[in-house]
Amino acid sequence: MLKRYLLAPGPTPVPPEVLLSMAMPIIHHRSPDFLPVLDSAKKGLQWLFQTKNDVLILASTGTGGMVGAVNNFFNPGEKVLVINGGKFGERWTKICQAYGLRVEEIVVEWGYSIKPALVESALKKDSEIKAVFVQATETSTGVYHDIKGLGSVIKNYPDTLFIVDAISALVAEDIRTDEWGIDVMVGGSQKGLMLPPGLAFVSVSDKAWKKSEASKMPRFYFNFKKERENLAKNQTNFTSAVTLIIGLNEAIKILQKEGLENVFKRHARLANATREAVKALGLGIYSKESPSNSVTAIEMPEGIDGQLVYKTLREKYGITGAGGQDKAKGKIYRMAHLGYADTFDVITGIAALEMVLKQLGHPIRLGTGVARAQELLME
Amino acid sequence: MLKRYLLAPGPTPVPPEVLLSMAMPIIHHRSPDFLPVLDSAKKGLQWLFQTKNDVLILASTGTGGMVGAVNNFFNPGEKVLVINGGKFGERWTKICQAYGLRVEEIVVEWGYSIKPALVESALKKDSEIKAVFVQATETSTGVYHDIKGLGSVIKNYPDTLFIVDAISALVAEDIRTDEWGIDVMVGGSQKGLMLPPGLAFVSVSDKAWKKSEASKMPRFYFNFKKERENLAKNQTNFTSAVTLIIGLNEAIKILQKEGLENVFKRHARLANATREAVKALGLGIYSKESPSNSVTAIEMPEGIDGQLVYKTLREKYGITGAGGQDKAKGKIYRMAHLGYADTFDVITGIAALEMVLKQLGHPIRLGTGVARAQELLME
Amino acid sequence: MLKRYLLAPGPTPVPPEVLLSMAMPIIHHRSPDFLPVLDSAKKGLQWLFQTKNDVLILASTGTGGMVGAVNNFFNPGEKVLVINGGKFGERWTKICQAYGLRVEEIVVEWGYSIKPALVESALKKDSEIKAVFVQATETSTGVYHDIKGLGSVIKNYPDTLFIVDAISALVAEDIRTDEWGIDVMVGGSQKGLMLPPGLAFVSVSDKAWKKSEASKMPRFYFNFKKERENLAKNQTNFTSAVTLIIGLNEAIKILQKEGLENVFKRHARLANATREAVKALGLGIYSKESPSNSVTAIEMPEGIDGQLVYKTLREKYGITGAGGQDKAKGKIYRMAHLGYADTFDVITGIAALEMVLKQLGHPIRLGTGVARAQELLME
Amino acid sequence: MLKRYLLAPGPTPVPPEVLLSMAMPIIHHRSPDFLPVLDSAKKGLQWLFQTKNDVLILASTGTGGMVGAVNNFFNPGEKVLVINGGKFGERWTKICQAYGLRVEEIVVEWGYSIKPALVESALKKDSEIKAVFVQATETSTGVYHDIKGLGSVIKNYPDTLFIVDAISALVAEDIRTDEWGIDVMVGGSQKGLMLPPGLAFVSVSDKAWKKSEASKMPRFYFNFKKERENLAKNQTNFTSAVTLIIGLNEAIKILQKEGLENVFKRHARLANATREAVKALGLGIYSKESPSNSVTAIEMPEGIDGQLVYKTLREKYGITGAGGQDKAKGKIYRMAHLGYADTFDVITGIAALEMVLKQLGHPIRLGTGVARAQELLME
Repeated sequence: MLKRYLLAPGPTPVPPEVLLSMAMPIIHHRSPDFLPVLDSAKKGLQWLFQTKNDVLILASTGTGGMVGAVNNFFNPGEKVLVINGGKFGERWTKICQAYGLRVEEIVVEWGYSIKPALVESALKKDSEIKAVFVQATETSTGVYHDIKGLGSVIKNYPDTLFIVDAISALVAEDIRTDEWGIDVMVGGSQKGLMLPPGLAFVSVSDKAWKKSEASKMPRFYFNFKKERENLAKNQTNFTSAVTLIIGLNEAIKILQKEGLENVFKRHARLANATREAVKALGLGIYSKESPSNSVTAIEMPEGIDGQLVYKTLREKYGITGAGGQDKAKGKIYRMAHLGYADTFDVITGIAALEMVLKQLGHPIRLGTGVARAQELLME
Repeated sequence: MLKRYLLAPGPTPVPPEVLLSMAMPIIHHRSPDFLPVLDSAKKGLQWLFQTKNDVLILASTGTGGMVGAVNNFFNPGEKVLVINGGKFGERWTKICQAYGLRVEEIVVEWGYSIKPALVESALKKDSEIKAVFVQATETSTGVYHDIKGLGSVIKNYPDTLFIVDAISALVAEDIRTDEWGIDVMVGGSQKGLMLPPGLAFVSVSDKAWKKSEASKMPRFYFNFKKERENLAKNQTNFTSAVTLIIGLNEAIKILQKEGLENVFKRHARLANATREAVKALGLGIYSKESPSNSVTAIEMPEGIDGQLVYKTLREKYGITGAGGQDKAKGKIYRMAHLGYADTFDVITGIAALEMVLKQLGHPIRLGTGVARAQELLME
Repeated sequence: MLKRYLLAPGPTPVPPEVLLSMAMPIIHHRSPDFLPVLDSAKKGLQWLFQTKNDVLILASTGTGGMVGAVNNFFNPGEKVLVINGGKFGERWTKICQAYGLRVEEIVVEWGYSIKPALVESALKKDSEIKAVFVQATETSTGVYHDIKGLGSVIKNYPDTLFIVDAISALVAEDIRTDEWGIDVMVGGSQKGLMLPPGLAFVSVSDKAWKKSEASKMPRFYFNFKKERENLAKNQTNFTSAVTLIIGLNEAIKILQKEGLENVFKRHARLANATREAVKALGLGIYSKESPSNSVTAIEMPEGIDGQLVYKTLREKYGITGAGGQDKAKGKIYRMAHLGYADTFDVITGIAALEMVLKQLGHPIRLGTGVARAQELLME
Repeated sequence: MLKRYLLAPGPTPVPPEVLLSMAMPIIHHRSPDFLPVLDSAKKGLQWLFQTKNDVLILASTGTGGMVGAVNNFFNPGEKVLVINGGKFGERWTKICQAYGLRVEEIVVEWGYSIKPALVESALKKDSEIKAVFVQATETSTGVYHDIKGLGSVIKNYPDTLFIVDAISALVAEDIRTDEWGIDVMVGGSQKGLMLPPGLAFVSVSDKAWKKSEASKMPRFYFNFKKERENLAKNQTNFTSAVTLIIGLNEAIKILQKEGLENVFKRHARLANATREAVKALGLGIYSKESPSNSVTAIEMPEGIDGQLVYKTLREKYGITGAGGQDKAKGKIYRMAHLGYADTFDVITGIAALEMVLKQLGHPIRLGTGVARAQELLME
């Protein structure tokens, strides 16, 4: 028997009450049984997104929301600025290009975060830029970008939308959609929201709705205008992903019981303990700046293959984290503290990491990282 | 207390073992835990689709699969033929138009089915037609179109794809993808497959793959080529809808235990009993030709509002069926016998319909329809 | 595929929300997590039992509660009166004899109910009788005994306890523990309470507690005094059957939402429709007097074996009812309408019975019973 | 949000697949649906008990099984020997006395284990002793008694039964019922078997069956002869606790997949790591001899109240272990490693204990115990 633990940056563990809420007999999405469910979900999402904007609910993964954030607001040939600091930054570029946008990239070195000033000068220089795309948390590097700072810059450009992929950041970071001027923000179900994959969420500001009117890109499945009309009637444009939305309400209920501020504090506390434990072990944090509260990218010591660490953790200890991607492959191991995560997930993750590193021949004193985490996690 | 029954043509009831299979702790979609799950799902779908083609698994509703069936194979300006015999026929037209195709429609009167000869003359007349789009079952009218007949016509046109929306027909009808030459066939989770909404399935023939190479429509989320590459590795292009795919395996297991032939026989038996019961009650079947084995559209008698029947069934008897759409609104009531359906679902649905019709003032002898259904359902 | 229906007089179907409530991670029975659960359960049971007495919760089947009702109140050699009108009447006798009581029986013919006057004369004649034991509903015959009438007789005998097995009657019948002077009343989980088997409930009056002080029968597991002491602290004497008690709360919540009066009305309505449908089919009700609202015992026509009816219903139609026991074996088929039961359970049960009788060669017009049930069940 | 962990010596955590297996629609205990379930359960229990004897399945807690082990084999006035080394040793005495047996006790100091030689001299001295009662694991002290040694002594006394309460030891210890000559062995569901409370299991040897023939103690609910007769027909004497028995099969399936030897090794490994971690922290093990593989009783340092440790672990860290009972109350804290337990349950339990001890003012270096556990748990 090998008990299994999921410490990956998505999907993340789903609380039992959420799993069981989705196991009730299914109800019809156009019936009065479901309308209050959707009403509650949309209000809960507004609370979580800290916005008065509509938050659309799409039956797709988060990437579907990202696609919608591109093909509802622009026309082919328009120019946009993508902040590319990792795998998901790249994804913005690819989506924009797939839809015929001219993409200008600010490439941020992996492990670093964007300086809002760079965006400011780009916008100043080039009045054609119709949008700035960024990740709140770049999952591949464990970096949190300065969304507040970017917002305060972009706010001054009335023809430029601020579009944020918050798929991995939502719930873990205090992102203030309205206060910071985020026009389009994308979330997904299988991260901080503690749900299975299959739902995307997108908030849209008035500024964005206005711009969307001129957009003529082909779209049908991710048609935000139609979704908005349906949302007003507590429906979705196509068949609602009924069970996942029921689970969404249950997950939001858990978060609301904890309180938004406490939710953010918990994530900050777990992330901090993880990072400090890693440092106590003499390992480096891959995120040189602004490490995320969702996931910690841990630099592997010389001679230790991150992929082998990932594999050994799974096979010997039942722990599924994540390795590195692309240029970070083999160099890092990523451990999440996101969603349904608490003190002993960190302890477990660090203790197991210590055991594996030792087994793989890295000279480590067992308990060193755990002790540092314990110190910081004492309540 | 009011026990609830779901007799709508999607979502349909989900068997308890399927619901519970999805309540297990979540696993990671890129881990060895999940790969055999996807492998099993893809093979199960091939069995169900009666095809050797790949069957792609998309995290979207069935409509997402329909969109993919358009934007992976064509270029703007190409001409296609849509058979429009109801709400979902219309949807093919709308999707094709949204992506810039020139749509020629064969409009089939609601309640009737397409004559393959009409398609043949259209194809003969116009060599530009790159595809024929049709529903296997048009859910809005309860008509099953002659897919076999259409296939035998279209087969002779090497430059024309045969694209079938089988979302409501799959499992209920014996559709032979390969034998009949269907190039692209779309299914969805929440119908005959007895799953919650959130998955689309699309089979793609070699002929279609070949044509797709020239397609330059913008696409990212529904990128079939990428999905195919991932499928070969037992993955999906983006995060897999893990829980739904686990449920999919469980649902297919139930169908395989019954045997495909028996599955079709059961649906035919339930559908036949429903129709005969309706006739015994002196009511008409809205589908004048080729009534579907998934759902029966029942004509309401003079003076009885189908919407009120729907509402009364829900409120007094806990039964959720479906009313009519658009021009059929008020005129029909639809009752499904699809997926996780058996003898006493038909008995329940007919008995309740009788009670409601009587209550609404229609002169009906209680038990008349039930007796006819019993007769036909005796084993 | 054969959908399955449970129409037996226990276990009865468990609502999905109850099943799922019991699938949450387990909690410790002596911890603050569980104490409020037990507190709520005990109050809910008092509401359901219509009593201010303690209602003990035992980890056993209902029979365990019956044993406790004997071995906590008497001493070997004491004389008691058992009303024996069926299999469960016999059980009272056997338990009393196992514990050394002298049992006087009033044998009631199967299918008939006790006349309270008979009990009165027995009590008048014999002042030694320390208790009267009876079933509220005798499950084997489908008879409800006149608990109110018995109570009004026994009330006048200060040294005689009135002990009622309400295992099958609870929830289906309006039994007023305190108002009618019931000293000890036993319930079980797997009947009207819509739970799996494994819990017994016993209410104990002050009169009974007083009598128990003198009882010296050996007892340890079913020690009511200890259970009472623990109950006051929201615990049970031994490890609580945690999951079942959690389910109990969920089940009571459903009943409370419906309201006690409506619960009784529903059972009366379903039972009446069942009986009238049976009569419309020309069959007899086995309970010649006072038929129960929990279960209907249906007399099989000449030449039809009740056991074969039971078997055929199961194998061809997926319906599990119950045959007859002992002298009624083969002569009756029993169909419950108990707990999580509603209109279409009756329709299903009657329709299936019609089909089976016809198949077994009994000349029946299909739909006859159903039509009568429909008529009575129209809301 | 506070994630919860259950590290108490019963109930213990229930694996999700077991919980969900019990959430399926209920089936009837006398129907062909259930008979193979019981058949499989009884064979699984024989495998687990390492016996060819029948293993009875009772709807009660483990204590019910203990009661049955007394009242099925003896007559009032017979003399028995009870080994009393803690709370559960006391329970044997109390049950025996409740049923009128003359009890001779060998009192073993709490924390110590019985010397078989003492039993041997008692048996030699007094030929009247009809049975020796003992716990395999005395849960209150964390001591495992030498069952093998006792068996080899008692075997030589053909008129003396060897009766073992293995409720807390089963699954954690390699107890060879037949090989060691155990006549009656009692198990319970909510311990090593990873199930909710509500089932007791009792194996009975031929020697015991023979002795039971002369037993005239009053019994009805725990009537082993009747249970045996029913078990032969894959039934139980009264309504089977259907859901728990379904869960039992699922739990046994997990254990069988692991293999009995590996199950015992896992428990030994976890127990050893726990004890060594405790020692590394400078704390004492309460079990001075033969510490159990189910639960470790940890001595609290001077000035630290075990009850406060229990309470703080629950409230601050979500961990439910167990305090001490009676004379050990306040002096110890008990942490189980029983059933569904693995490496990181030990790490979590020790890490949390360190944090609480430190918080309560005990001078401890965080990570010390964890490091020792990690060392021993490295695979």
